[in-house]
Amino acid sequence: MIDFRSDTVTRPSQGMLAAMQKAPLGDDVFGEDPLTNALERETAQRFGLEAGLFCPSGTMANQIAIKNHSSAPGSLICDQRSHVYLYEVGGISFHSGLSPILTQDEAGLMQPSSLLAALPNPHDLHKANAQILVLENTCNKGGGSCYELDQMQALSQLARENNLAVHLDGARLANAIVAKGYSEKEVGACFDSISICLSKGLGAPIGSLLLGSADFIRSARRLRKLFGGGMRQTGQLAAAGQYALDQQWDRLAEDHEKAAELGQLIAQQAYCEELAPIQTNIVLFRLKEELSPQAFLDQLAAKGLLAVPFGGQWIRLVTHLDISAADMQQAKQILRSI
Amino acid sequence: MIDFRSDTVTRPSQGMLAAMQKAPLGDDVFGEDPLTNALERETAQRFGLEAGLFCPSGTMANQIAIKNHSSAPGSLICDQRSHVYLYEVGGISFHSGLSPILTQDEAGLMQPSSLLAALPNPHDLHKANAQILVLENTCNKGGGSCYELDQMQALSQLARENNLAVHLDGARLANAIVAKGYSEKEVGACFDSISICLSKGLGAPIGSLLLGSADFIRSARRLRKLFGGGMRQTGQLAAAGQYALDQQWDRLAEDHEKAAELGQLIAQQAYCEELAPIQTNIVLFRLKEELSPQAFLDQLAAKGLLAVPFGGQWIRLVTHLDISAADMQQAKQILRSI
Amino acid sequence: MIDFRSDTVTRPSQGMLAAMQKAPLGDDVFGEDPLTNALERETAQRFGLEAGLFCPSGTMANQIAIKNHSSAPGSLICDQRSHVYLYEVGGISFHSGLSPILTQDEAGLMQPSSLLAALPNPHDLHKANAQILVLENTCNKGGGSCYELDQMQALSQLARENNLAVHLDGARLANAIVAKGYSEKEVGACFDSISICLSKGLGAPIGSLLLGSADFIRSARRLRKLFGGGMRQTGQLAAAGQYALDQQWDRLAEDHEKAAELGQLIAQQAYCEELAPIQTNIVLFRLKEELSPQAFLDQLAAKGLLAVPFGGQWIRLVTHLDISAADMQQAKQILRSI
Amino acid sequence: MIDFRSDTVTRPSQGMLAAMQKAPLGDDVFGEDPLTNALERETAQRFGLEAGLFCPSGTMANQIAIKNHSSAPGSLICDQRSHVYLYEVGGISFHSGLSPILTQDEAGLMQPSSLLAALPNPHDLHKANAQILVLENTCNKGGGSCYELDQMQALSQLARENNLAVHLDGARLANAIVAKGYSEKEVGACFDSISICLSKGLGAPIGSLLLGSADFIRSARRLRKLFGGGMRQTGQLAAAGQYALDQQWDRLAEDHEKAAELGQLIAQQAYCEELAPIQTNIVLFRLKEELSPQAFLDQLAAKGLLAVPFGGQWIRLVTHLDISAADMQQAKQILRSI
Repeated sequence: MIDFRSDTVTRPSQGMLAAMQKAPLGDDVFGEDPLTNALERETAQRFGLEAGLFCPSGTMANQIAIKNHSSAPGSLICDQRSHVYLYEVGGISFHSGLSPILTQDEAGLMQPSSLLAALPNPHDLHKANAQILVLENTCNKGGGSCYELDQMQALSQLARENNLAVHLDGARLANAIVAKGYSEKEVGACFDSISICLSKGLGAPIGSLLLGSADFIRSARRLRKLFGGGMRQTGQLAAAGQYALDQQWDRLAEDHEKAAELGQLIAQQAYCEELAPIQTNIVLFRLKEELSPQAFLDQLAAKGLLAVPFGGQWIRLVTHLDISAADMQQAKQILRSI
Repeated sequence: MIDFRSDTVTRPSQGMLAAMQKAPLGDDVFGEDPLTNALERETAQRFGLEAGLFCPSGTMANQIAIKNHSSAPGSLICDQRSHVYLYEVGGISFHSGLSPILTQDEAGLMQPSSLLAALPNPHDLHKANAQILVLENTCNKGGGSCYELDQMQALSQLARENNLAVHLDGARLANAIVAKGYSEKEVGACFDSISICLSKGLGAPIGSLLLGSADFIRSARRLRKLFGGGMRQTGQLAAAGQYALDQQWDRLAEDHEKAAELGQLIAQQAYCEELAPIQTNIVLFRLKEELSPQAFLDQLAAKGLLAVPFGGQWIRLVTHLDISAADMQQAKQILRSI
Repeated sequence: MIDFRSDTVTRPSQGMLAAMQKAPLGDDVFGEDPLTNALERETAQRFGLEAGLFCPSGTMANQIAIKNHSSAPGSLICDQRSHVYLYEVGGISFHSGLSPILTQDEAGLMQPSSLLAALPNPHDLHKANAQILVLENTCNKGGGSCYELDQMQALSQLARENNLAVHLDGARLANAIVAKGYSEKEVGACFDSISICLSKGLGAPIGSLLLGSADFIRSARRLRKLFGGGMRQTGQLAAAGQYALDQQWDRLAEDHEKAAELGQLIAQQAYCEELAPIQTNIVLFRLKEELSPQAFLDQLAAKGLLAVPFGGQWIRLVTHLDISAADMQQAKQILRSI
Repeated sequence: MIDFRSDTVTRPSQGMLAAMQKAPLGDDVFGEDPLTNALERETAQRFGLEAGLFCPSGTMANQIAIKNHSSAPGSLICDQRSHVYLYEVGGISFHSGLSPILTQDEAGLMQPSSLLAALPNPHDLHKANAQILVLENTCNKGGGSCYELDQMQALSQLARENNLAVHLDGARLANAIVAKGYSEKEVGACFDSISICLSKGLGAPIGSLLLGSADFIRSARRLRKLFGGGMRQTGQLAAAGQYALDQQWDRLAEDHEKAAELGQLIAQQAYCEELAPIQTNIVLFRLKEELSPQAFLDQLAAKGLLAVPFGGQWIRLVTHLDISAADMQQAKQILRSI
């Protein structure tokens, strides 16, 4: 099976497994796991931020950040295609009691003018005042779309002028940085907090990091306990995460090339009505109206290729480190054969 | 001052004041206020529902209904122009922890196809499952727009087939019934709960009613206590509400005529870019781009007419029982004079 | 029926009804009801606080205050007999998400040493940090017990040293002030916010006031909208409240005397195992073990006297302004006759 | 350093590490991790329950269970010494909005009579109705105290008669089963859900299991996603958990013996005012009033022994699999030397 369902399906490489095995261990709830401490500290520094927190998932990192920046009643502004709104089980409302205000821009990339128009009048007693802006880079539902640096800077400035905290859902931020060429510190300067997923394209088995100021992370640590994310001997997971950051970051460019290759091929097939622009490792395409997405996916699966439905007639494929050159050859053959 | 800001500004008429004065009183938390009990029971019967609950505001009636129908995590589906989403301080998320899913139809009137498209896949673990549909009739932000009966019926059927509770925000339901001619019982059959505001066009000083099944109202009564809506000697307010329902319902047709008159006049003025269709007692119009809404409203106020800004270039006027024939004459003169 | 169930059952006196009738009215959501504005402003000044907010109930005033002072996760410290914990439907947890920490002192009156022992270690990540202290004066479940001024001052100082906000549930604060002789301003200096009920011993039909700083009340006003407590023409209720404060405050001393008389008599009856000390208008006594509280109350009711069960073998009677001298004569006869 | 701070500090044994290395891996959010699936299924069967869910911590397992069994407003009944109330950052109120009702029995073991007395009157609108009972076995704050089987059965029956769900916080349930000799299935029959910690005495690095009916676990799986506990390649953690259950369960008896030995010695020392009865692997003792707990712990640490303060004058030591025979010899010497 060639598995394009998500870049979360990657398994630890041999080098990563070796790093995990030799990890020294301590109790992280007591703050005594050395590799976890180092991973948190060093990743924060890489982004020019003060401190970090290892979390069991990106959803937890995002939701802790949102709660940490806010006190309900209030509003959170994000694009309508945001993961925090669409795929985190309504956590914005459940955990933080915030009302989402949804902008609608191309590929899920918010325009500063949209942010401006979305801001509720802070003096209107009927409105939940805006407390936080969340961007997603790359935007999954936008087809792995990337923000330009100046766009993030403009949004950040506007948000801060209006007393909003600014959080980045950076589940696939490494892909954006590799694709766009801006630096970690340039990104870090735009945000009060950033989540980074270690278990997507970077290839670790488990974990995300939340980054921010020392004060922010101090209270986030209590929230992590509250959410049930305080784990004990996390050293092996931290070793895998460190290996992912050190050894498997630059190679994301290969995933992007593979996605581009697949997209080029798919765009030429009869079943493809529309292909979303490919910027990173995600391929989104729309099936012709007369085709059933489920039947199409079943056909692919029968031939050995897995992908996922993505709403309406859309289909998503994601490239990742477990897709070999041979897999690519076979995948192209399958995609041409339908 | 001719006050078109809202139909909430009405003051009790002489007849209503007389009814209030002679009201016998009991402690409603003990269930012993006779007029409150009668008002709840009789209004429910009028809509073919089992029981009613007197609340200090429509916001409370709506928010209690939403909480009573749901258990977070979950989603609530409503139009993006809904009062429950826009003007209740984020209560959907704050009180009930629900994530709003927003449809976008003309004049805030949801189409059945939009509801169908909005339903999240109940088997997708990333999604907060849909638990409740809220309609608003008339829709304030839609310009006092009214649902057709068969549209409410289709939405209700679709919602119930998908295990959603159906609540009607009927803040101005009396206006819709007067304008469209359907019966209270026909409306009641579409919904699991209905809120009706006594202090808008109907002219009572304070209060809304929440209607539903006997079981629903039993638990809503506890929620009202929780929200701080359990009041003591409510008899005078109930007397005013009963008078409003009995004596000031049919006269809403006059407000509708007045709104139509104002609209016709406004549409002909140079400052008016667009007039929303007028179905009931709300006049919405869009100022020409080059005009400042605040300056325009200030000018009106200086001449003795009050209206409110309604987002962007839009201005809202609402007609009501305290607008006399003389007021109308003067208002027209002012609106022509700008 | 002589109704000792609660001081909430009082009906407006003739003077109060007259004041209500002649009240000028405005829309309080627009901030335009003159008597409501005056009542809020003047009552705040009376307690040396900056601003006030009229609420439909004491429960709402308390719960808004608690939410306004806190951001979950966190803890609220109060006595285990507090109204906010026992009788507000779990609102501390529902509205504010706070975890209650319960002290256990005689008659529900917290000792400073108990507060000190209850404070969680702010550095322990497993603990929800303490954010607010709530006292109740008089304490209903404590039998109308009153705080001494120096006790309130000591608790307030301790709370503030530990960065806790301090709220007073003053549902029956007027009774405490009349009984103890301290001044409104002395009480006001101890608290960041105070709720006062107008519809208990003071005799208004509906309403409570929340008092605090100008900033606190500004955000409390938005929370009142969120809770559904924004009402329209509140002028008649404000007129009643003003009358209650001006004309029916000092007479609470009569209620206290009546309670003392009843207590003295009850203590001598065979059915009484224990009488709680009587400080204000509440009489609490414990029935002999072998008696059924419900049967006892039924017997009283059959003879024309209403009281309420108060947990275990305890029975509560409350005196108030609708208990006449003749009622007292008859009540004593009934209480002796069982 | 001999580390008696907690049984959470244990590191994987060689056998466990070997099991982790050879674990096949799949994406558990897709339900495709084979060892995780097996661990969930088999542990549930062991307790006679239908299904299981692997969680990153016991706090998450408990808090998901509480939310899954309830809909606020409502109450949760537990002992005042419960971990869910004391050490989970106020999660009962934060996540579920429930108001805790706290019983007070010896060693944190609830008596059926206490449960009966704690049940709020379901017809009283002022009360948040009771929805769930939580027991803890062994009870950490009670000194590792164990329930008798018939006591759990009586509590369970009483709870179910009153329509309460029954959850067991079984963080150290294996210790209770080893100490008391009842069977897993006997325990399972008493509860609607059980959490079991794999990373305390059982010695896995990370993880807890939540057990319950198939329906309960289906919705718990969505709640786990909401809480951020959906992890990806969990196979290594599951392998460690399986090894812990298979190979390190029976040896808990050794920890109990070591705790008994330590307790016997401590009871004879001058600094010990009181020793709590020792039933499992927890030693609780109270220092003489004149001693400072922190100074005492510092002295121990200086000599190479770590323990934790446990409120007031109490000190806690916990025995576990990383305490060797040599450690015990040295520990006794240290404890005698102070």
